Amino acid sequence: MAPLLSLLPPMVQCTKATPGCDATVHSPAPLPGDNAAMCFIRRARKARQTGFFGHPIHWRLGLAPLLLCRALPVTRNRQEGAMAHTPKPSEEARVSLVGAGPGDPDLLTVKALRCIQQADVILYDNLVSEAIRDLFPKDSTALFVGKSKHRHGIGQHRLNDLIVQLAQQGLQVCRLKGGDPFVFGRGSEEMLALHQAGIATEVVPGITAASGCTSYAGIPLTHRGLAQACTLVTGHGESELDLDWAGLARGNQTLVFYMGLSQLERISATLQRYGMAASTPAALIEQGCRPEQRLVTATLAELPLQAKQHGLASPTLIVIGEVVSLSAALAWFGAPSQTLPAALTA
Amino acid sequence: MAPLLSLLPPMVQCTKATPGCDATVHSPAPLPGDNAAMCFIRRARKARQTGFFGHPIHWRLGLAPLLLCRALPVTRNRQEGAMAHTPKPSEEARVSLVGAGPGDPDLLTVKALRCIQQADVILYDNLVSEAIRDLFPKDSTALFVGKSKHRHGIGQHRLNDLIVQLAQQGLQVCRLKGGDPFVFGRGSEEMLALHQAGIATEVVPGITAASGCTSYAGIPLTHRGLAQACTLVTGHGESELDLDWAGLARGNQTLVFYMGLSQLERISATLQRYGMAASTPAALIEQGCRPEQRLVTATLAELPLQAKQHGLASPTLIVIGEVVSLSAALAWFGAPSQTLPAALTA
Repeated sequence: MAPLLSLLPPMVQCTKATPGCDATVHSPAPLPGDNAAMCFIRRARKARQTGFFGHPIHWRLGLAPLLLCRALPVTRNRQEGAMAHTPKPSEEARVSLVGAGPGDPDLLTVKALRCIQQADVILYDNLVSEAIRDLFPKDSTALFVGKSKHRHGIGQHRLNDLIVQLAQQGLQVCRLKGGDPFVFGRGSEEMLALHQAGIATEVVPGITAASGCTSYAGIPLTHRGLAQACTLVTGHGESELDLDWAGLARGNQTLVFYMGLSQLERISATLQRYGMAASTPAALIEQGCRPEQRLVTATLAELPLQAKQHGLASPTLIVIGEVVSLSAALAWFGAPSQTLPAALTA
Repeated sequence: MAPLLSLLPPMVQCTKATPGCDATVHSPAPLPGDNAAMCFIRRARKARQTGFFGHPIHWRLGLAPLLLCRALPVTRNRQEGAMAHTPKPSEEARVSLVGAGPGDPDLLTVKALRCIQQADVILYDNLVSEAIRDLFPKDSTALFVGKSKHRHGIGQHRLNDLIVQLAQQGLQVCRLKGGDPFVFGRGSEEMLALHQAGIATEVVPGITAASGCTSYAGIPLTHRGLAQACTLVTGHGESELDLDWAGLARGNQTLVFYMGLSQLERISATLQRYGMAASTPAALIEQGCRPEQRLVTATLAELPLQAKQHGLASPTLIVIGEVVSLSAALAWFGAPSQTLPAALTA
């Protein structure tokens, strides 16, 4: 097993600042792309002394904390006093792969909320909204392990190893992912690594974006006479999108592209080339299920232009199919749908 | 608008019996298919006198209660005393179309649970599990509006009208559906009717079976190298299944059939006829996410026989695709996967 030090690269970071924090852990050295505040460590509501990972802080991980993390003993038995090293057997450790849903904390499942509340360590990524991060207990440790604008993520293999290591220390780990862990979430890869290491793991499914964002946009995924099937696709490909375009272009179903905004022109053009009507209703849902949700509806052909005109950014879900035509009649959340006047789109 | 009497046919029923009940509402006349106990009315924990629909009971609706329902005044203002007729304007009435998820009450969303707790009337159907029904507040009214073995359901149009009428009386209505209201749930049809009647409605997405049941069975819907798309289909067709079989039969995706058990032979045969390998891994998940969950894995070709051998019944989800091969490695919930010895399947 690789040493823990190598498992925790500098890009593991905390995203929240807490003024008036009580720094008891070494601050990490500055890293490229860091913002000014680097290490945020705050006083716990309850004084829990359970070793480094159990320490009541939100922190930004850099090299120095990693060394500390390696050096400090850990125990979860709060009756034993602070620093006794009593690692639990791995079968007692437990990891929950938890779906956080699309952003609205009200869409957390009861079980997800419980996992968050009971975790010693929460490992979360980009799509976990700020409103959900605000629910993290003050006496748990929250680590950001996603990608950010300025740096790549930790890497899946190293992340897998990190979760295994944390669990093997007897910590209760909540691996929190936006949406659903088993829908474009790579949760299965993490679970395979955990099971191979003999660590008991559970999955807490979450509301996936295709379901949550469309519901909040008034777009049913299926509707009698309009769509009796629904296909979820990732628009995020490392090079070409290797998809069954002929199958996707056939009607009578709803298409939902995750992470497809950067490929939107190609998606629109290819679907039309494979026979989908240019006039097929389509929608872009930016920041779905959040207060800042924006819905843009257009035809399939006009969609890329609309995305540019409205300056849409990630996360944006692409929905294509006749069901989009219901969005005006079913609108109930957030601002009304935006479409530019035809003159502007010509 | 049709009179309320005609909106509430006898098949609207409560599924729970409570011994020692305090019958204060007329018992309905016996109906074909009734079991022995017919009208279950129980004492409330708190004495809330808010008219008939607000009365603290779980009840089985027949003709007589409908008349009573029609006759009684309704008010939601609990400060005003019992029986004053103070219908609220329809814009104050509010209906929540709520997804109950696949059965485990832990998979209710926080918002769904709140809607259930705050409702005056809960209209629920078959796939809402008993464990979830146990969460219904004792002082709300719960109506079963699904189909049962012995009788057809209320019918979508009449159900739509019923929800409208209840909302127009100023009641807080929770329309609770198994899974997700917008995924083969016909929630959009109900919402159209509500919006046409000017009634404010919200959608609370739920964990749909394709996500919940597969997670509990250790089957990811997507996995790098195995499936980068996922298609949800209904196997429930009134006559022929009008599906894009050629598109479905192509690989690199996961297929999930809802309500397809009765069509399983046709599904298996047709997919093979359109070129899907007979050896494609496939799974049947019966009673997914519930303590009695059963998982049966087999090849696509063997699946219908396995379903018979194991005596599977609805609700059973069909999952087809390479991701099923991960189910043994990712198993974590319930009994291990069942497959019959090859000799028995020959």
